[in-house]
Amino acid sequence: MTNSPNQVYPVIWHNDSVSLIDQTRLPNEYAFVEIHRSEDMARAIKTMIVRGAPAIGVAAAYGMYLGAREIETSDRHDFLENLDKVAQLLRSTRPTAVNLFWAIGRMLKTAYETTGTVEQIKQILLQTAQDINTEDLQTCQAIGDHGLAVLPTNPRKLTILTHCNAGALATAGYGTALGIVRSAWRESRLERVFADETRPRLQGAKLTAWECVQEGIPVTVITDNMAAHCMKQNLIHAVVVGADRIAANGDTANKIGTYSVAIAAKAHNIPFFVAAPLSTIDFELSDGSQIPIEERNPEEIYQIGNTILTPSNLDFYNPAFDVTPAELITAIVTENGAFTPSDLAQSQIKQMV
Amino acid sequence: MTNSPNQVYPVIWHNDSVSLIDQTRLPNEYAFVEIHRSEDMARAIKTMIVRGAPAIGVAAAYGMYLGAREIETSDRHDFLENLDKVAQLLRSTRPTAVNLFWAIGRMLKTAYETTGTVEQIKQILLQTAQDINTEDLQTCQAIGDHGLAVLPTNPRKLTILTHCNAGALATAGYGTALGIVRSAWRESRLERVFADETRPRLQGAKLTAWECVQEGIPVTVITDNMAAHCMKQNLIHAVVVGADRIAANGDTANKIGTYSVAIAAKAHNIPFFVAAPLSTIDFELSDGSQIPIEERNPEEIYQIGNTILTPSNLDFYNPAFDVTPAELITAIVTENGAFTPSDLAQSQIKQMV
Repeated sequence: MTNSPNQVYPVIWHNDSVSLIDQTRLPNEYAFVEIHRSEDMARAIKTMIVRGAPAIGVAAAYGMYLGAREIETSDRHDFLENLDKVAQLLRSTRPTAVNLFWAIGRMLKTAYETTGTVEQIKQILLQTAQDINTEDLQTCQAIGDHGLAVLPTNPRKLTILTHCNAGALATAGYGTALGIVRSAWRESRLERVFADETRPRLQGAKLTAWECVQEGIPVTVITDNMAAHCMKQNLIHAVVVGADRIAANGDTANKIGTYSVAIAAKAHNIPFFVAAPLSTIDFELSDGSQIPIEERNPEEIYQIGNTILTPSNLDFYNPAFDVTPAELITAIVTENGAFTPSDLAQSQIKQMV
Repeated sequence: MTNSPNQVYPVIWHNDSVSLIDQTRLPNEYAFVEIHRSEDMARAIKTMIVRGAPAIGVAAAYGMYLGAREIETSDRHDFLENLDKVAQLLRSTRPTAVNLFWAIGRMLKTAYETTGTVEQIKQILLQTAQDINTEDLQTCQAIGDHGLAVLPTNPRKLTILTHCNAGALATAGYGTALGIVRSAWRESRLERVFADETRPRLQGAKLTAWECVQEGIPVTVITDNMAAHCMKQNLIHAVVVGADRIAANGDTANKIGTYSVAIAAKAHNIPFFVAAPLSTIDFELSDGSQIPIEERNPEEIYQIGNTILTPSNLDFYNPAFDVTPAELITAIVTENGAFTPSDLAQSQIKQMV
């Protein structure tokens, strides 16, 4: 794969290592970080050089291979024991996005189920990481196209509000929420994107805006607290967001602020879509209250660039995600089509995951 | 009046001029700007050196006197004609807060109704501006105490969420929303304040946090998009905000993001109070759709300190206020007591204004 300005792949296997777009430097700088070791991949996930639930999954899969490569043994038992430690390290990076655990689990399962030499297992692990990468790209393209089928048709050209960045940068490429936006743009069904800036880390202002500008998609950046006002002014026809984890009942964890947008959308009768691969659904959790919510450093709130925003000697609360209850979600758009949250309970969807 | 750290008066008449706390420099610097001329006062209001609806009213009243003082004529007709121009200049600074127009109107009316020499009118105008100042301080203290009567009583010590800064800095002193917070703190009925940071200008993170820290009131700063999540976590017992203009039906314009908080409060059955002097009510507007909403420079969104947040070549929308419909408001707390929005239609309230 190559990176052209309007084909964004945040995780690339290249020259026996992983190239990550350094998302902490966008939009000012479009730079890559080369990752050769599993420890460096864990750090890159933790510090959000790579972020976005599906992209974290792809990165962690490669991280598992890098870790496997570092294990110097030809003993299968030894190898698997050490690979478990790599998995543990990568799992400890971020708690909310389930794609991380899903990808690590798939890599581990592959290792345990592969017969042959340690060298052969390592080769299969590289192949599996590359498969996860390729599949995620295809998944996003499918999500984009399925999204077209459920978007409102009146007006023909829609203004879509999104929160955070569920774009190419958050996936193997193309994006989940922005996958639907891209498909709508391709089919001339998109008027404009409204991007919540998404405090505290400003992924909307920085990343979603950047992706839209790359492709010439008209984008208006607003502060998060303007979304409800924009809805009241009839500026928004639909909301599309990504997901970090979806419980069995459809409750959806996504970037902090998503819940607020969902409440406002409901109050204005605006459809609210969650776009996510099936691997985001965690059938082990019956509802959203069981999803672990990461709390991050308060510095993300009180400092921007070199500017300290607040006085000293006060408290902060910095949850990185919130949970949107299923009843506020119009549909969950996956690579196998769009479902209502209550559809998830059907056995055929469970079998897809 | 003197300024001690925990007695904050943003507008002070002193040495024949007006001292304004420069609110654009807080919390890093507690500095004053001396205003000698009406033009400088207009600029100070426009650039938000002084901000907050009641404080703008007080500042504009002094601005009217400064303008009157500059008029070099002893002819009453000439004087009044020139005073009208001063009024026009001051009115053009900010469109939404009605207290601005109310204070300018009261100053003009006083001038027109005062007999005697131009010098005598000028003296009465100074006295009137000082009265407006003193009355606003008393008004805020009354709002604070009336607020106590309507706050929930379970639990006894409350966590109160506020948005923007409706504090001492936004008034002659003591504050409207923060007036209620101060009275609750004095009576040991306050556990903690949650302060929305209030993008784009961050008045919550900068000003409300600063006021709380001055008085030792425990305060937690969150980003605006966390408010709904905090409500769901049962961290918030009541919401108290200020107002820039209240229409006759109770629809309330306040800092952008207030509407979003009000929708979330309703969804969680949390009482939502508006704290404002009666002079904030504009009986000439039947509902909130008629309230003019100021749009400000997009730079407020895309730049913080020296840091540019977004890429180039995109659009912004920067409404400074939004309108919260009356049905989301539990009560409007004024200096004459708390009213439901529907109470406003009663003739005795109209007579108070």
